[in-house]
Amino acid sequence: MLRLGIVGFGQQGKLYASILSGITLPGMPPIAKPRDCVLTAISARNASAKAQIEGMGICYFQNWKDLIASDACDAIVITVPHFAHHEIAIAALQAGKHVLCEKPMTIRATDAQAILQAQKENPESKLAMMLNQRANSLLQKVKAIIASGELGKMRNTNYITTNWWRPDSYYESNSWRGTWNGEGGGILVNQACHPLDIWIWLCGMPRSVYSRCLEGAHRNIGVENDVIVLAQYESGAQGVFTTCSHDLMGTDRLEISFDKGKIILEGNRKATILHYKAEENAFGQLYDFRTFYGVMAQNPDAIYEKEELVSQNGFCDDYVQMFQNFADYIAGTSEPIAPIEAGLRQVQLANAIQLSGWTGQEVSLPGDSDTYNQLLAAKIKEEAIL
Amino acid sequence: MLRLGIVGFGQQGKLYASILSGITLPGMPPIAKPRDCVLTAISARNASAKAQIEGMGICYFQNWKDLIASDACDAIVITVPHFAHHEIAIAALQAGKHVLCEKPMTIRATDAQAILQAQKENPESKLAMMLNQRANSLLQKVKAIIASGELGKMRNTNYITTNWWRPDSYYESNSWRGTWNGEGGGILVNQACHPLDIWIWLCGMPRSVYSRCLEGAHRNIGVENDVIVLAQYESGAQGVFTTCSHDLMGTDRLEISFDKGKIILEGNRKATILHYKAEENAFGQLYDFRTFYGVMAQNPDAIYEKEELVSQNGFCDDYVQMFQNFADYIAGTSEPIAPIEAGLRQVQLANAIQLSGWTGQEVSLPGDSDTYNQLLAAKIKEEAIL
Repeated sequence: MLRLGIVGFGQQGKLYASILSGITLPGMPPIAKPRDCVLTAISARNASAKAQIEGMGICYFQNWKDLIASDACDAIVITVPHFAHHEIAIAALQAGKHVLCEKPMTIRATDAQAILQAQKENPESKLAMMLNQRANSLLQKVKAIIASGELGKMRNTNYITTNWWRPDSYYESNSWRGTWNGEGGGILVNQACHPLDIWIWLCGMPRSVYSRCLEGAHRNIGVENDVIVLAQYESGAQGVFTTCSHDLMGTDRLEISFDKGKIILEGNRKATILHYKAEENAFGQLYDFRTFYGVMAQNPDAIYEKEELVSQNGFCDDYVQMFQNFADYIAGTSEPIAPIEAGLRQVQLANAIQLSGWTGQEVSLPGDSDTYNQLLAAKIKEEAIL
Repeated sequence: MLRLGIVGFGQQGKLYASILSGITLPGMPPIAKPRDCVLTAISARNASAKAQIEGMGICYFQNWKDLIASDACDAIVITVPHFAHHEIAIAALQAGKHVLCEKPMTIRATDAQAILQAQKENPESKLAMMLNQRANSLLQKVKAIIASGELGKMRNTNYITTNWWRPDSYYESNSWRGTWNGEGGGILVNQACHPLDIWIWLCGMPRSVYSRCLEGAHRNIGVENDVIVLAQYESGAQGVFTTCSHDLMGTDRLEISFDKGKIILEGNRKATILHYKAEENAFGQLYDFRTFYGVMAQNPDAIYEKEELVSQNGFCDDYVQMFQNFADYIAGTSEPIAPIEAGLRQVQLANAIQLSGWTGQEVSLPGDSDTYNQLLAAKIKEEAIL
C-alpha cells in the first residue's frame, strides 16, 4: 500500500484528496478509490485547512518541506502552481520520496531537466506525471493500434484543440491567471498541455516547429491564447496543431493519416479508425483514380474497413487509474503510463512553440533553452512594468 | 441568347459541350441545359474531332485563333491547359469576345494581371471565371450568412482539404501531369484552386502566408503535393489551410469561427451553423466558466441555436448555373458569381503559398511576382535537366 502525501490543497489537491479517500463529490457519481494507495498527509499553506484535514485522519503540514522530511508518506503528489513544481520535486526525490507530478512538469524545460537529473542521482526515488488523459481507455486503444504498426507510418497529423474557452472573467478570477509571472505563459502552459502530451504520445515528437502565438486575442491578457503550430517530423511527415481560448464552442478533433489507414479522434470520446485493405498508393494500380471513387461509393468494403470506438471512461476513472498505475510503478509491477520523460518532452514542445512565436523563427527541438529563459524573463519583467 | 464557343476539346471541354447541348452523359442523370446559352463553335487541335463536332451542328475550328476571329460565337469558354489561358483570354478580349475562363485563371499572377489589363483596355469585352463550386447552393447560403454580418467578424479559420487523392498511376497517365513545365506546380495549381477560391471568398484574402510545401510526398513527382499554410489576416485573425494528394480517404472540412458564431462546412454537402445568443465573451459575465459548461450540457438553447444546412445541388447543377450566370452577366442583368478579380486573387494566393514554400519565408500578399516567376522558371529548367 503506497502512502501518499498531497502537496497543495487548491482545486486539484482537494479533488485528489476526495478521489484517494473515496469521497463522493456533490452531485457527482461515486468514484472507485484506487486500490493500492492511501492518503496519509497533506500540506496546505493556509492553516485554516488544518482542522478539515486532521478531521479526515490525515497528517497536516503547513510547509511542504516538513511533509517531505516526515515519515508520514512514501510519495508525494505535487499540485501547487507550476512555477514551484521543480523545487518541490527535486527536494522530494532527494529526500527519498517518490513523486507524482501535476502537469505541466515545469514552466521551463531547464527546470524539467533538473528534475530528471535529480531522479538520476537518486535512482531509488521514482517520478511519474499526472497526464491523466493518457489513461482514457479510448486513447489507450488508439495508442495500441498505432504502436502495433498495422496502419504503417504516420504521414500527416492535424489537431484542432480549441475547446478551452476561458472568458475574461476567468482570467480576472485570480491575479496569476493569464500572466507571464504567474503562469509563464497562456494556453500553451496551462490548458493545452494535455493535447500537447497526447499529440507527442500518439504522433511522436516533432523535429521542428514554426508557430504563430497571438497574445491577448479577444481577451484582456498579455499571454498567448490563440496558437497555430506547423510541425515537421524526422520521418518527413508534417502536421498542424491549433488551440485557442476564445472559441465558445471549440473543437477537439485530431486526425492522423498513415500509409494504410487513418484515425479521427473527436472529443476524446469517439475514434473512427479506417483500416485500408492495402497501402494507399496500391489502389492506383487496381483502379483508375476516377473508377476508384465509384468503387468507394458502391463497394467500400473492397477498399477499407471502418472501426468506431467510444470511450467507456466514467467520471474520474482516468485519475483513479493514474494513481493505481503510480502505485504499481513504485511496486515495480508496471511501467508508468506517463513517465518522467513525457513530462520533459511536453514542456520542451511548449517552450519551443512559444520561442518560435516570440522570434518568428522555426525552432528545432529540443530548442534553445537559454534563449527561451532569457525571453521569458524579459516578458515577466516587461509585464511588471506595465 | 449568348452564343458560346469552347476552346479546347479535352475532358472538360467535352463535359461543357454535353452540358451546353443538353446531352445526358452515360450512366448519369439528365442535365438541365442553361437557358440563355447556345453552343455554336468548338476549337480542337486534334482534327479527328471535326466530324463529331460538325455532326452536332456546331462550327469546328482547328485553331483557336480562327475561332476567335470568326463570327461563330459571342463568347468563348477556355478549357485548354493552364499555361495557355492568358494568351487566348487576352486575344479573345481584344477581338471583342467575352470570356469564361476555366480555373486556374493562369499559372503566374503576372499573366492574370495581363488579362485584367486587357479587359480594362477592352471594356466592352467581359471575363468571368468558371469557379463552379461558388454556385453550390449550400456555399451560396453560407456566403450570405457571413456577408449579413450576423455572426460578427471572423476570428479563426481552419480548412482541411485533403480529399484530392491521386495515385502515381494518375500522374503517369499524362506526361504533363505533376510537372513544373506542364502545370506550373502540383496540388496548389491543379486540384486545390477550388478550395483556395472558396477560402478567399468566405474568409477574405490573407495579408500574409507562411507555408510548407512537400514536393513528391509519397509520389514519384517533383511538384508540391502536401501543403500546410499558416495565414494572417489584416483584421488580426489567423488561419490554417492544409491539402495533400496522398490521403486515400481525405477530409474536406472548413471551420470558421466568428465573434457570435461558428460555421463547420463538411464536404461541400453539409454545413453546421452555430448562432450564439450573444458575443462569446459576454457569456463570461453571465456564468462562471465552469457553470457555463453545465448550462451548455443542460440548457444549450440559452447559449446558441444550431442550424444544419444540406446542399440541394444535383449533378452538374453548379456548371449549369455558372453558364446561366455568365449569360446574365453579359446581358447586364446580373453580377458574375466569380468575377475576373476572383481569378487573379486565387492565382496570387497559390503563387504566394508556393513562394513561401520555396523560400522558407513568410510572404505578404499579393507577393513578389518577379521572384516567383524567376524561381518557377528555375524549377522548370531544373526539371528539364533531370
